[in-house]
Amino acid sequence: MAASMLKVAVGSRAYSSGIRDVLWKLGRLNHVAIAVPEMEKARSFYRDVLGAQVSEPVALAEHGVLTVFVELGNTKLELLEPLGPESPIRGFLQKHRDGGMHHICIEVDHLPDAIQQLRQRQIRTLSPEARIGAHGKPVIFLHPKDCGGVLVELEEA
Amino acid sequence: MAASMLKVAVGSRAYSSGIRDVLWKLGRLNHVAIAVPEMEKARSFYRDVLGAQVSEPVALAEHGVLTVFVELGNTKLELLEPLGPESPIRGFLQKHRDGGMHHICIEVDHLPDAIQQLRQRQIRTLSPEARIGAHGKPVIFLHPKDCGGVLVELEEA
Repeated sequence: MAASMLKVAVGSRAYSSGIRDVLWKLGRLNHVAIAVPEMEKARSFYRDVLGAQVSEPVALAEHGVLTVFVELGNTKLELLEPLGPESPIRGFLQKHRDGGMHHICIEVDHLPDAIQQLRQRQIRTLSPEARIGAHGKPVIFLHPKDCGGVLVELEEA
Repeated sequence: MAASMLKVAVGSRAYSSGIRDVLWKLGRLNHVAIAVPEMEKARSFYRDVLGAQVSEPVALAEHGVLTVFVELGNTKLELLEPLGPESPIRGFLQKHRDGGMHHICIEVDHLPDAIQQLRQRQIRTLSPEARIGAHGKPVIFLHPKDCGGVLVELEEA
């Protein structure tokens, strides 16, 4: 599965793409997730100080988070506050008491093929299977150690 | 400068906006910056494993970084490798040896007004003045302690 190279131009910048045996394609950035210790304080910052449109809070008990979306036109920020004692972001906030960037979510056009090919490239996933995410679509998280320290969520577009 | 509230609908989700004495408007997410310890390894991950279009590396000596842009259609990731002994991301990589998310950059339509109004709201900036960023436009960084733990760059659109 050797990657050959293709040079393309986007605007005035030279870009190159690796050509895989393509079973799936990477899409747009769906959101940047930000863990916050106090949702109303964070929501007020984005709404009242920066002037962004922010959603009402939505509790996702099965994911252990309270969520608020900040609309930025081309993409969203997803604010996450821990919900319940087993919340997966509680440990993160113990290390980052003011809050901080938690993960990025990129869309893919076919998640099962993406998972299969990424595993062939030794990229680990944090769960054995995709599950239904905050938008009602299948998602999976890739291991940050295999993604340059970044927790990457892939979401079926 | 009391903020009143306006409810609006974006898709099927209810959003609310704070109404400031508006001198400036928040725009789109320009990029998510990711600090990386080894640029070619990170570049290969996004290009060959995820199949994204990536730019050639560009050295920005005055900012102390080597940069690569990963094109995601609606926005970009900006990979940053330290350049020179005084690089501002060297300390970050000492704490996050695998790399990690470093800042988000949001566009504004009028940066001087944004800086003035944010300072009135007690949001500190990391430099006294805006300076020219990686895209040749004025930028300024907001203090992460005043932005819920997130380093926020504002860029004149």
